[in-house]
Amino acid sequence: MKKISRGDCERLDDRDPLAGIRERYYLPEEVIYLDGNSLGPVPKTVPGRVASMIEKEWGENLIKGWLADGWMDKPLTLGDRLARLIGAGSGEVVVVDTTSINLFKMLAAALRLRPERKVILSNRENFPTDLYMVQGIVNWLGQGHQLRLVDEDKVVSALDGDVAVLMLTQTNFKTGRVFDMAKITKAAHEVGALTIWDLAHSAGAFPVELNAAAADFAVGCSYKYLNAGPGGPAFLFVAKRHQNSAEQPLTGWLGHDDPFAFDNEYRPADGIRRQICSSPGVIGLVAFEAALDVIDEVDMTQIRIKSNILCDIFIDLVQTECHEFGFRLVTPREAGVVEPLLRGSQVSLVHEHGYAIVQALIRRGVIGDFRDPDIMRFGFAPLYLRHVDIYDAVIHLRAVMECREWDDPAFQERASVT
Amino acid sequence: MKKISRGDCERLDDRDPLAGIRERYYLPEEVIYLDGNSLGPVPKTVPGRVASMIEKEWGENLIKGWLADGWMDKPLTLGDRLARLIGAGSGEVVVVDTTSINLFKMLAAALRLRPERKVILSNRENFPTDLYMVQGIVNWLGQGHQLRLVDEDKVVSALDGDVAVLMLTQTNFKTGRVFDMAKITKAAHEVGALTIWDLAHSAGAFPVELNAAAADFAVGCSYKYLNAGPGGPAFLFVAKRHQNSAEQPLTGWLGHDDPFAFDNEYRPADGIRRQICSSPGVIGLVAFEAALDVIDEVDMTQIRIKSNILCDIFIDLVQTECHEFGFRLVTPREAGVVEPLLRGSQVSLVHEHGYAIVQALIRRGVIGDFRDPDIMRFGFAPLYLRHVDIYDAVIHLRAVMECREWDDPAFQERASVT
Repeated sequence: MKKISRGDCERLDDRDPLAGIRERYYLPEEVIYLDGNSLGPVPKTVPGRVASMIEKEWGENLIKGWLADGWMDKPLTLGDRLARLIGAGSGEVVVVDTTSINLFKMLAAALRLRPERKVILSNRENFPTDLYMVQGIVNWLGQGHQLRLVDEDKVVSALDGDVAVLMLTQTNFKTGRVFDMAKITKAAHEVGALTIWDLAHSAGAFPVELNAAAADFAVGCSYKYLNAGPGGPAFLFVAKRHQNSAEQPLTGWLGHDDPFAFDNEYRPADGIRRQICSSPGVIGLVAFEAALDVIDEVDMTQIRIKSNILCDIFIDLVQTECHEFGFRLVTPREAGVVEPLLRGSQVSLVHEHGYAIVQALIRRGVIGDFRDPDIMRFGFAPLYLRHVDIYDAVIHLRAVMECREWDDPAFQERASVT
Repeated sequence: MKKISRGDCERLDDRDPLAGIRERYYLPEEVIYLDGNSLGPVPKTVPGRVASMIEKEWGENLIKGWLADGWMDKPLTLGDRLARLIGAGSGEVVVVDTTSINLFKMLAAALRLRPERKVILSNRENFPTDLYMVQGIVNWLGQGHQLRLVDEDKVVSALDGDVAVLMLTQTNFKTGRVFDMAKITKAAHEVGALTIWDLAHSAGAFPVELNAAAADFAVGCSYKYLNAGPGGPAFLFVAKRHQNSAEQPLTGWLGHDDPFAFDNEYRPADGIRRQICSSPGVIGLVAFEAALDVIDEVDMTQIRIKSNILCDIFIDLVQTECHEFGFRLVTPREAGVVEPLLRGSQVSLVHEHGYAIVQALIRRGVIGDFRDPDIMRFGFAPLYLRHVDIYDAVIHLRAVMECREWDDPAFQERASVT
């Protein structure tokens, strides 16, 4: 195999249609940021937009801002903007609450739609909080529901007539493996089950096609590939056909058909609006809105194409530059540009000293992260990463290994953040 | 009764120990803001602190900010700071999610603690969203629970051995009437019921004494008298004695005993931390933190004393300056400085043309709000209102009435925000 050179990467950067987008993000100098799958960097649109919201909207308009500045409708207007990125239609997405709380709503709604079934099916490799939310709802309902956990390869074969809902995270947070949403949704529907897709490592990372897959429900977060800031507002999707029968217990006033009537009886709004519970956190929504201003300029297919190249270069270079250090690739080698996609926008390597290697890389300014027990995780966000960044990252990795920089007592204590 | 003059108010301002605090808030010129009970104004600490969080913490530290900048612990550290204002102890409060969602958690936990009881007692005058949350949980559980609604005067007499939980908003959002938290909590405990107090119009408005009243659970919001911005993060309180038995179904990873172990089995953390579900929305928390920087400088008793004077001046002036216009006071005349408090920090007047009068006042820069069917609501936040503001507001009110400014076709369509 011909070795990829830094010059090759420079030439790819020269021809990169997304190259100019990098300038729209704050990236600390001397940092190669391969952790945008955990927390995206600051879009340059954000500080000014947030300052303006605080000083002009909140500061000058005070209470009037709820209507004059469109605060009240932001969950819906942002949802409609986000819809394009995840293959949803207008009026099918709201930006609200947190991913876990939205998952709770969608689980509650799905179980209500399949009252005779008692199984929630998921895979063991799912992000634990998703499983915790199921456990919470199951324990607390006390109606004999159970969480059926299988290996990710067994998801389709574990579908049967007892399954009320199949809940999957589309992109595995450790390995970057992507489920075939269309095929699996179809299999679920064939046994009469509903689907809930968690788009945590999908939204903004590649084109998601919820409606093309006939997905029922979805949730996701804004702070990874959508760059809305730490703990930014989450979103949820309910397919049109379920909206007026999707009932869940978080029935706050903004989901009421006529919130300002202040009736004492709850009457759910039609459509997606009933999934909104409380007055929205406007500062966080405005940051998200500003982050979308950048993403709205790009085509998701271009993002996907560049993402695949970045991941492929990394995998190839680790193979050629670091072959003697015993890294094992746990991310699918195949990616796909159109459905079915097989790989997200990350590459994960297994190594017995993985934790310490990641720390040594961070000391060099190459920021990835680590997941137990031995997974080194590198996210490749096409909006702001250059091809040369990938090259340089692997050269740093080789240096860390050659110089045994990982063998440093400072790298013993483990702490990490998704 | 001797008429209060503007000069009297100026003299009160001269001697006001809180007078200097007004300079810590952005208040548009020519505005008298009597709607801080709905949305407080911008503390001058907020824009800089938010900008610094975005540009320095998120911008420079990226993913490391979760630990390096204390993002992860903010729900707890902010909760501890807030505790002083509401009579709670360290480790009893977290700042997280929304008021309604926190209410859901507290309702769920309380019902679980009283499994043999089926009644949730509240008053008809409660803020509707609180009642909607009960309806949501009752319908969804399907275990024969019921919401028992009584007039606010009948709350104590409606307590019996069927009541699992008494859920009240301490301060009535329309009238400003305050429940005697200690006395009512005692009565609830005497029949074996638990209490949930919504502090929406209480926290920051006057000293709340949760532990002195032996309250069990409480929730509240940050965007009214705490000035954290529109839809700012909410809080919840669980008394120490209930913390390790308070179980609710929103069991996200940050409430896990060891979140970063990524176990597939949920195991709740001890203490208040199990009430945290998701990664916190840091930008909103930082705004709240900056808002507390101002409030932390003041003594809640001083706030209460000034609040009472502002409300009393307003009531007296409406009586003397506007006696012929038929306003009816629906706020208690008595307030109280120490427990039991009878009145919040607002005054509400009833008038058949109430909606249009409020609009005419807003056109003059006097911002209050309106609540169906005929209630004009004026909030008096002692941190930034001057005594002369109250005087000037009433003079505007008299002018609106004398000139029949309310009789304007533009003031027909109704829209308002709590």
